[in-house]
Amino acid sequence: MARDPTKDYFAGNDRDRAAFEAGIKLGSIYHQFLGAPLTRDTARDLERAIEAGTRVQPLVEDVRVRIDRKRVRGRGPYRYASLDEDMLTAEVTIRAGKARATGVLRFVPELDYPLMYLKSVEGPPPKG
Amino acid sequence: MARDPTKDYFAGNDRDRAAFEAGIKLGSIYHQFLGAPLTRDTARDLERAIEAGTRVQPLVEDVRVRIDRKRVRGRGPYRYASLDEDMLTAEVTIRAGKARATGVLRFVPELDYPLMYLKSVEGPPPKG
Amino acid sequence: MARDPTKDYFAGNDRDRAAFEAGIKLGSIYHQFLGAPLTRDTARDLERAIEAGTRVQPLVEDVRVRIDRKRVRGRGPYRYASLDEDMLTAEVTIRAGKARATGVLRFVPELDYPLMYLKSVEGPPPKG
Amino acid sequence: MARDPTKDYFAGNDRDRAAFEAGIKLGSIYHQFLGAPLTRDTARDLERAIEAGTRVQPLVEDVRVRIDRKRVRGRGPYRYASLDEDMLTAEVTIRAGKARATGVLRFVPELDYPLMYLKSVEGPPPKG
Repeated sequence: MARDPTKDYFAGNDRDRAAFEAGIKLGSIYHQFLGAPLTRDTARDLERAIEAGTRVQPLVEDVRVRIDRKRVRGRGPYRYASLDEDMLTAEVTIRAGKARATGVLRFVPELDYPLMYLKSVEGPPPKG
Repeated sequence: MARDPTKDYFAGNDRDRAAFEAGIKLGSIYHQFLGAPLTRDTARDLERAIEAGTRVQPLVEDVRVRIDRKRVRGRGPYRYASLDEDMLTAEVTIRAGKARATGVLRFVPELDYPLMYLKSVEGPPPKG
Repeated sequence: MARDPTKDYFAGNDRDRAAFEAGIKLGSIYHQFLGAPLTRDTARDLERAIEAGTRVQPLVEDVRVRIDRKRVRGRGPYRYASLDEDMLTAEVTIRAGKARATGVLRFVPELDYPLMYLKSVEGPPPKG
Repeated sequence: MARDPTKDYFAGNDRDRAAFEAGIKLGSIYHQFLGAPLTRDTARDLERAIEAGTRVQPLVEDVRVRIDRKRVRGRGPYRYASLDEDMLTAEVTIRAGKARATGVLRFVPELDYPLMYLKSVEGPPPKG
């Protein structure tokens, strides 16, 4: 494989980059798609588009997006919803060299907050 | 069919509303989905999600979204694109009572501009 | 003033266009800015940016955006909010030739819905 | 200061988290605000809103956003622009415990790509 030409721009090591890229993908998903109109019937189309739009981005090894159908309640007189933070779960795995990081976005009721966190991160320790 | 409870809020007539709703849908499509990552392979998923997300909104009779594959060029070292205004064409038809309006969003090269315009609008003339 | 070169693309009359453009602006505001992070202290910055971003668009005569401070509750451990549909009120007035339309976006509790409606529309009746 | 209740959810160490959070903020900025209408006159309002919306998010120590006025060309008959990837530079510094990461978003002409990269990352090495 050709050398990654973005390497010259990056400080840190592969593990740092894996964590960084996992963050990018989750921030992107939330802020690109929040507010998109949907119903239970169309939730699958939106999940697919979010997954497809994540998979094409740098270093993505795997992505799964799930919209909680039970929380997609048709509201108002027209009976549809807007994608809201408490409906959406996403899990993205990044591979950078020998490092790997998995980030998760999900609404955590105990925190009353759509948390983005590192579920796992592995790789050689940085030099310092 | 039940009476539309939003009617009390609206000034104007059905034709006004049809034009107004057509505008809403086009403004929504542009500002919700611009910037979404894609490739030629994933463009269909994004078209489908945009159409599905439009169809569930009020008074939509028909919607067609087309992403111009020729303009989806993989850029940068990772060979993907972001949905840009010159890739996207959308046509939405609204039905309000006996009135109907069709709005179009498409990039017009002569104007160097992603124009949203009323392609057709028909209905009884307003009283005033 | 120079003739508007977009006129050739438009069906309908000035009144239709005023209603259509009012819809575009409200759909744009909602789908561009929903989800933006804010606190009560930063709400003014966001209001200003939304107003500025609306005022530069075609045919806008006036725009007012208001974020309801009482509904901006800091949530989660980090005490900030995301712009949500029940926080946002926008009123946009469009002038097209001799016609004028004012559209409103606001959350209507009775409908449980962020309604976009024509508050007023005036102008010569269409020929058809 | 109270213990951060999100800590229980996070794998990895402070340095991993700093890199991750830097990525979130840059992904958020890009996908929230791309497409927002602007002119050279309103660019400052948008910069301010993006900075304010970033500063309220978790662990942000500093943020600077710059929209390149030379690239904000009024296009089309209405002489305004939409925020595009080649106009926007953002630099965000995250502090997590004793670790710190600075991420940058800027369009890199040599790569023909709006690159997000770690400009610096420092902190204790992970345990393994």
